[in-house]
Amino acid sequence: MSRHFEQSAVTVLGLGPMGRALAGALLDAGVRTTVWNRTPGRDGELVERGAVSARTAAEAVAASPLIVVCVVNYDAADAVLRPAAVAGALKGRTVVNLTADTPDRARDTANWAAAHGIRYLDGAIMTPTTTIGTPAAVFILSGPAGLHQEHRPVLEALGGTHTHLGEEIGRAAAYDVALLDVFWTAMAGYAHALAVARAEGITARELAPFAKGIGAILPPLFDQYAEDLDDGTFSGELNPITSAVSSMAHIVHASEAHGIDAGVMRGAEGMTRRAIGLGHGDDGFSRIVEVLGRR
Amino acid sequence: MSRHFEQSAVTVLGLGPMGRALAGALLDAGVRTTVWNRTPGRDGELVERGAVSARTAAEAVAASPLIVVCVVNYDAADAVLRPAAVAGALKGRTVVNLTADTPDRARDTANWAAAHGIRYLDGAIMTPTTTIGTPAAVFILSGPAGLHQEHRPVLEALGGTHTHLGEEIGRAAAYDVALLDVFWTAMAGYAHALAVARAEGITARELAPFAKGIGAILPPLFDQYAEDLDDGTFSGELNPITSAVSSMAHIVHASEAHGIDAGVMRGAEGMTRRAIGLGHGDDGFSRIVEVLGRR
Repeated sequence: MSRHFEQSAVTVLGLGPMGRALAGALLDAGVRTTVWNRTPGRDGELVERGAVSARTAAEAVAASPLIVVCVVNYDAADAVLRPAAVAGALKGRTVVNLTADTPDRARDTANWAAAHGIRYLDGAIMTPTTTIGTPAAVFILSGPAGLHQEHRPVLEALGGTHTHLGEEIGRAAAYDVALLDVFWTAMAGYAHALAVARAEGITARELAPFAKGIGAILPPLFDQYAEDLDDGTFSGELNPITSAVSSMAHIVHASEAHGIDAGVMRGAEGMTRRAIGLGHGDDGFSRIVEVLGRR
Repeated sequence: MSRHFEQSAVTVLGLGPMGRALAGALLDAGVRTTVWNRTPGRDGELVERGAVSARTAAEAVAASPLIVVCVVNYDAADAVLRPAAVAGALKGRTVVNLTADTPDRARDTANWAAAHGIRYLDGAIMTPTTTIGTPAAVFILSGPAGLHQEHRPVLEALGGTHTHLGEEIGRAAAYDVALLDVFWTAMAGYAHALAVARAEGITARELAPFAKGIGAILPPLFDQYAEDLDDGTFSGELNPITSAVSSMAHIVHASEAHGIDAGVMRGAEGMTRRAIGLGHGDDGFSRIVEVLGRR
């Protein structure tokens, strides 16, 4: 595989767990990889594997035509990219910003990049660090299609699928925020469920196989609710909102009876009761989306 | 299949979507099935398929040695079962209560049943109505093991897997509450994600394939977090809580910038910031469970 990339060079800015995984995948593919992190000392293992350790962000940027940024948020990305020495070194180069933040921040960064002659793609990584360099990784990107095509071969050294979602630069961040919403809400629910189960004398290992069963019924429901929503049908024949809110009330009650905070489920119950109060009790749960989005 | 059950008789009390599915599966298996619902007129299709329609709950109970109850909650179940005429008719018979509610309500109903000479199993159905009568259905039960063994053959006519979770009568309800917690929190997150995506010009059908990808990464994480929790390790090496809370803040911000209520994610962010405030920022998200459950 390395033969394909022996003339490619990529700089990775940010060496948290995800940044290190990205740099490692590039090294495995034979890409000349320069790395830098604000806090020093994170690049030891990568340097052993052949990475070039830059002393400054400007030096790191100057080493490659393609700069991949993966830091905690856009405040951190701005602090790295916007100082004059770094912005100057970036001129004419391409930044692929895989940092997660809101669509507005992606748009703001694209405007800044355009004003400084920097070519810019915004993206997000939708899978855990352990998937990087494997077929399971999922990358989403937005920005100029031609720019994406130009860098696609070397980006594919990161493994997985790479979906270009459109030219509008905020689109990848918008997908990212929505998908992280699904992920972190589900994880918050699982954490809460484990706490309630534990208070009832059920171990996490006892609950997990059944929780995985619940996980398995979600994807087909995701499709069904998407169709309900896009088509404006909100059929509650099999599972009306009133049935959902009854379950939610049981969960809140069982949780609080054990002294366990039920704030997340109280939020879910509240938005559901609001939909019922607006006259949608016989509809399906997808009606919640329409009510949440009302102006 | 019907040959196995030609001498079996089951009464189904409650003919909402799930009760109708249960009665339909029993009829398909050749079980003599008597049905009753508080609000009349729900049994037309079942009677066409061979069900016996009882005029009163007491008459329905008297028709079978095994009574399956599936109503909206235990308030509704109590209203059906506890009037003297029904309680008297239930004496010596077995009630399998598949109504969902809290573990305490299951325990209370078991005490009532014991005082009235009624044999009692409590259970829950963990899959949608469409799975009933198919291998995909998941039933969980708790109560006397011998009683479960006695009725297991006819209950298996309902399809799927039937797991006896233990003699403690509240155990099935405790699993049920915890698993519905996972389910409804995840669905609330998906609904919210669809609302944010829509505000960003992304249709539900565009988001759904990626949301299904998120759904697919949940089950292995459910196992990993269960091990972290039961073993008391809370490793945040790959994904520290501080990274989670950063994503949550982006979601709240992007949602509220569109005027979309973010109460559920605000709840999740709050419990996460609390864990960080208690000194666990470098731990993994499974630490949340331990913090939620603290006394």
